[in-house]
Amino acid sequence: MSEQYFFERPTSRKEKNIKWKTRVEKKVFSGQSKYQKIEVFDTYEFGRMLVLDGLIQLTKKDEPIYHEMLVQPAMFYHPNPKRVLIVGGGDGGSLREVLKHKTVKEVILDDIDEKVIEVSKKYLPFVSKGAFNDKRTKIAIEDGLKYIKNFKNYFDVIIMDATDPRPRDIAIGLFQKPFLKDAYKAMAKDGIISIQSGWVIENFSKMTRKNIKAIFPHMKLHRAFVPCFPFEEHTFTSGSKKIDLNRVAYQKIKKRFKKRRIKTKYYTPEIHLASSVIPNTWKV
Amino acid sequence: MSEQYFFERPTSRKEKNIKWKTRVEKKVFSGQSKYQKIEVFDTYEFGRMLVLDGLIQLTKKDEPIYHEMLVQPAMFYHPNPKRVLIVGGGDGGSLREVLKHKTVKEVILDDIDEKVIEVSKKYLPFVSKGAFNDKRTKIAIEDGLKYIKNFKNYFDVIIMDATDPRPRDIAIGLFQKPFLKDAYKAMAKDGIISIQSGWVIENFSKMTRKNIKAIFPHMKLHRAFVPCFPFEEHTFTSGSKKIDLNRVAYQKIKKRFKKRRIKTKYYTPEIHLASSVIPNTWKV
Repeated sequence: MSEQYFFERPTSRKEKNIKWKTRVEKKVFSGQSKYQKIEVFDTYEFGRMLVLDGLIQLTKKDEPIYHEMLVQPAMFYHPNPKRVLIVGGGDGGSLREVLKHKTVKEVILDDIDEKVIEVSKKYLPFVSKGAFNDKRTKIAIEDGLKYIKNFKNYFDVIIMDATDPRPRDIAIGLFQKPFLKDAYKAMAKDGIISIQSGWVIENFSKMTRKNIKAIFPHMKLHRAFVPCFPFEEHTFTSGSKKIDLNRVAYQKIKKRFKKRRIKTKYYTPEIHLASSVIPNTWKV
Repeated sequence: MSEQYFFERPTSRKEKNIKWKTRVEKKVFSGQSKYQKIEVFDTYEFGRMLVLDGLIQLTKKDEPIYHEMLVQPAMFYHPNPKRVLIVGGGDGGSLREVLKHKTVKEVILDDIDEKVIEVSKKYLPFVSKGAFNDKRTKIAIEDGLKYIKNFKNYFDVIIMDATDPRPRDIAIGLFQKPFLKDAYKAMAKDGIISIQSGWVIENFSKMTRKNIKAIFPHMKLHRAFVPCFPFEEHTFTSGSKKIDLNRVAYQKIKKRFKKRRIKTKYYTPEIHLASSVIPNTWKV
């Protein structure tokens, strides 16, 4: 039998000029939900891999980098995060990271696509690691754009864990101003939002930074290289209502990290600091 | 006409499981030297690109990240670098970085392959930016393994800018103990060596760290993501005879950076610090 490869669907200009593929051991699942095509592969380099509408969402090899860097900086910027909302993230990885904090009393995971949760529970249990069964977890299957309007002054941390949005994809609204304004209102006075914002050069990444700056008084960027999203470093954009994210001292992060005693594979207070140094070449 | 792509020659296990290609506008040069095949392409994503024996060496887009991160940490760890040796680096990028420091009185660039220098001068002048014409520059066309034996207690900084070595490639000896021992002897008492050491997972990268640890009392790793070497971050390994690289304070680097007034695109004292934070997942 000939070798099989997964090609990522080319989208942006950049991806037209670079093509890559990764060798597949077998296709584990393929199905269509109401919203998107869902596939799971076993690959030689990355291990098990989740793909939505042709775009890689996570792999066993490097999902800890992605999920820890999306969730932990925001959780440690906040002095005492109790109520958390995750929008998207149906695979349960962000949920797992939030629940590591004993300060947390309630997490709502709102994903529009129930099928992603189902498939992830069945084929990617190493991602959620039982987080769906935690007593503090509530699941909502609703459009995040509408669901967020149910809350006022409520969440300490909001995690926005949506796929890179293409112009007509379902996730685009989650990076736009109306949603981010509603998120602002849904957050408590010390509230922090952390958004997966892809490669710094992507249009939706620029849009995210622009919108966060327009709506929130404080913005902060973290970066990390995630191998299954090659060719650029990945960015994570935070917005804050009151806490000045540039003035939360490294020593404070270190102290909180020690006190909350959470276990991480990639994130540490040192990585927190290092990942917040943004190269001048990025011009952000 | 159909689209043309450059495929990088697959080498390691990892590269067997991931394949990638980048779109080529035109082939600018192709020739064979005594030692290797030399090619220059214009690409859509990376601009002009130098390829030796099928392996990408540098691209216009990201060579400043590579050359600054190979050269500048070592130059700033040293309080007063006057004499510098570059082994390899026939493109002149490392030479350009070294010459930015006014402390430097003499730089010797020793590349075994004169043809690489010739081709780089002609087709990649944006890399050396006139560095070959600087009065402080001397060129040696000799095998580095032999050439290094001419010096004792002489260089303040040695830059090892060789291609990723494959078992039978010409560069392999530059990562092995005999050469590194000779480099130790060729260095002044405060001497520092900086070595391009590829992806942290590569065998030659592990070998480099092991050999540096065995020969030098101090070792330090820096990392940076260089897009033309995708799928992992790139590493730069330093060894030091006397100066404890882990105890050169950030404030000292900052002070030297300000005093020497050099201009960089990517490297800053903040990046110096951030790039020296190594993820726990790397287990180095």
